[in-house]
Amino acid sequence: MYGAGDVRVETVPDAHLVESTDALVRVIRAAICGSDLWPYKSMEPTETGHRMGHEFIGVVEAVGTDVRTIKRGDLVVSPFLWSDGTCVFCREGLQSSCLHGGRYGSDNVDGGQGEAVRVPQADGTLVVLPVGEDDALMPSLLTLSDVMGTGHHAAVAAKVAPGNSVAVVGDGAVGLCGVIAAKRLGAEQIILLGNNPERVALGEEFGATDVVRERGDEAVERVRELTGGLGARSVLECVGVEQAVVTALEIAQPGGSIGRVGVPEHDTTPTSVAFWKNASMAGGPAPVRAYIDELLPDVLEGRIEPGRVFDRTSTLDDVPEGYRLMNKREVLKFQIAF
Amino acid sequence: MYGAGDVRVETVPDAHLVESTDALVRVIRAAICGSDLWPYKSMEPTETGHRMGHEFIGVVEAVGTDVRTIKRGDLVVSPFLWSDGTCVFCREGLQSSCLHGGRYGSDNVDGGQGEAVRVPQADGTLVVLPVGEDDALMPSLLTLSDVMGTGHHAAVAAKVAPGNSVAVVGDGAVGLCGVIAAKRLGAEQIILLGNNPERVALGEEFGATDVVRERGDEAVERVRELTGGLGARSVLECVGVEQAVVTALEIAQPGGSIGRVGVPEHDTTPTSVAFWKNASMAGGPAPVRAYIDELLPDVLEGRIEPGRVFDRTSTLDDVPEGYRLMNKREVLKFQIAF
Repeated sequence: MYGAGDVRVETVPDAHLVESTDALVRVIRAAICGSDLWPYKSMEPTETGHRMGHEFIGVVEAVGTDVRTIKRGDLVVSPFLWSDGTCVFCREGLQSSCLHGGRYGSDNVDGGQGEAVRVPQADGTLVVLPVGEDDALMPSLLTLSDVMGTGHHAAVAAKVAPGNSVAVVGDGAVGLCGVIAAKRLGAEQIILLGNNPERVALGEEFGATDVVRERGDEAVERVRELTGGLGARSVLECVGVEQAVVTALEIAQPGGSIGRVGVPEHDTTPTSVAFWKNASMAGGPAPVRAYIDELLPDVLEGRIEPGRVFDRTSTLDDVPEGYRLMNKREVLKFQIAF
Repeated sequence: MYGAGDVRVETVPDAHLVESTDALVRVIRAAICGSDLWPYKSMEPTETGHRMGHEFIGVVEAVGTDVRTIKRGDLVVSPFLWSDGTCVFCREGLQSSCLHGGRYGSDNVDGGQGEAVRVPQADGTLVVLPVGEDDALMPSLLTLSDVMGTGHHAAVAAKVAPGNSVAVVGDGAVGLCGVIAAKRLGAEQIILLGNNPERVALGEEFGATDVVRERGDEAVERVRELTGGLGARSVLECVGVEQAVVTALEIAQPGGSIGRVGVPEHDTTPTSVAFWKNASMAGGPAPVRAYIDELLPDVLEGRIEPGRVFDRTSTLDDVPEGYRLMNKREVLKFQIAF
């Protein structure tokens, strides 16, 4: 990406091992993330461009001499951040704060929207998938790299538990995965706030029991009506823009919980509304690595189908078009098949 | 209170029963709260004045016909809010959001800084104390009406657990009770941020293991040093002013928890710092009623001595002077003995 709206597919030097803890992965599936659209909307033009992409599945082509658990030929999924798996935060399941981790596409690490990636800290980062690379589950497995784990994180941060009333703010791919996660964790009522007909229809198939198409104060009023005047016990904020965050805070019931995974539009949040009703706020970048172990069996056994969020699959050459379509909301989520 | 800095002791009509669920309580101890200083600093002048006070212990003089658990002659402590004890939130222990509750000193309910109070919803609100009214524990019992329960709420909201590193922002009476609460819940390290020599000395007696006298970035740096570079796992925000909230957010470790009980100075909070490290924020007005049952045995058996936060005891006539001294930080917390 060279600037807002300027994505180019280019030939770059081959990815190669650098550290003894690296793995070299040939990418077979990748995706465009909602968060990739932030720079797509606003990035200042640059001469050098930025490597993009952080959601991918691939085949291990080579590993460094210190890699123990990953071997050549393994089919692997990568979380959207790499992490050592051994630091104090990784051991707690917060790999997104790994003391020795980092992001794809910066610091001389390749981006995931490309043919091959050097994966640092391969033992801590990668998870081997027990399927072949042409498996029909590939789209759902790919969501474990980010979007499904992020929706799950919102649900965990919002303390979704059996019998809860849950509201999901946002009908993007993360919100829809939040619906899956809420249902999976036993929510009784799942109110999806969104107004794109196809997306809310998919949300209903995923388990949403109610849809609120209104915005702002009207949305708050509707959620109150749907929850016996109390508000929702768990609220998943899956957008990040100011109005969505405000709505999420307002529709939470006293003592309820807001789980935030939308990248915040602003540094500040009007939290006093949460303070006065003792609502908690939690969330942030999802520790996806921690969740793969928990979610993978449900994908493999077909209990959840998060791969349905991909409504367009094409080749690497079409990535610029994929950005354009996702940014116009004509495509929900774009998958790259190599 | 007739306006900022204008507190008067006046003769008013006698408190009396109104509803069948009321109790009439003759006050024997009361206190000035840190939150009473907010209007003391900023209240617009009024003709009619506001009744003040919401922390008190008293003797029941009469009860309404529907009161079942409280009887004439009982020595009782009141939480700073009244609540019915039966609504959906009360049953969950969030009496501060009672659907039929309210505040002292408004809506025709007396304030606690007076000789007698009509207590609505007496069964849900009042707790009988199993001691005589001249008991030496009276100051500590009085703290169960607000300040000790509020410090405890900060610790609960900050998820203090055995072995945790804890930071307490603020050396006021709430912060010092937060130190007591953190120690009581098993914190291993308790860092008190404050710079009043007498207050931090009391905090150390209560269990603070470290004191950080710096403010702003220097305080953040000191807490990092004291916590192996990680930050504190639990942070109790016991002030509410902008700088204290920012400091609380910054000193929390990734995945840590901030418990807020300081009345927010501003509606907005710079929460993105919490988002990026997955720190949670919780807290608000303490459901003190829920905590009295838990804390009372520790007070009665002398395991905690929160009453030591009272460094001045006087009569009702001295209440205006009490406000003046607390506002100048010359008195930590003022107790009224009748």
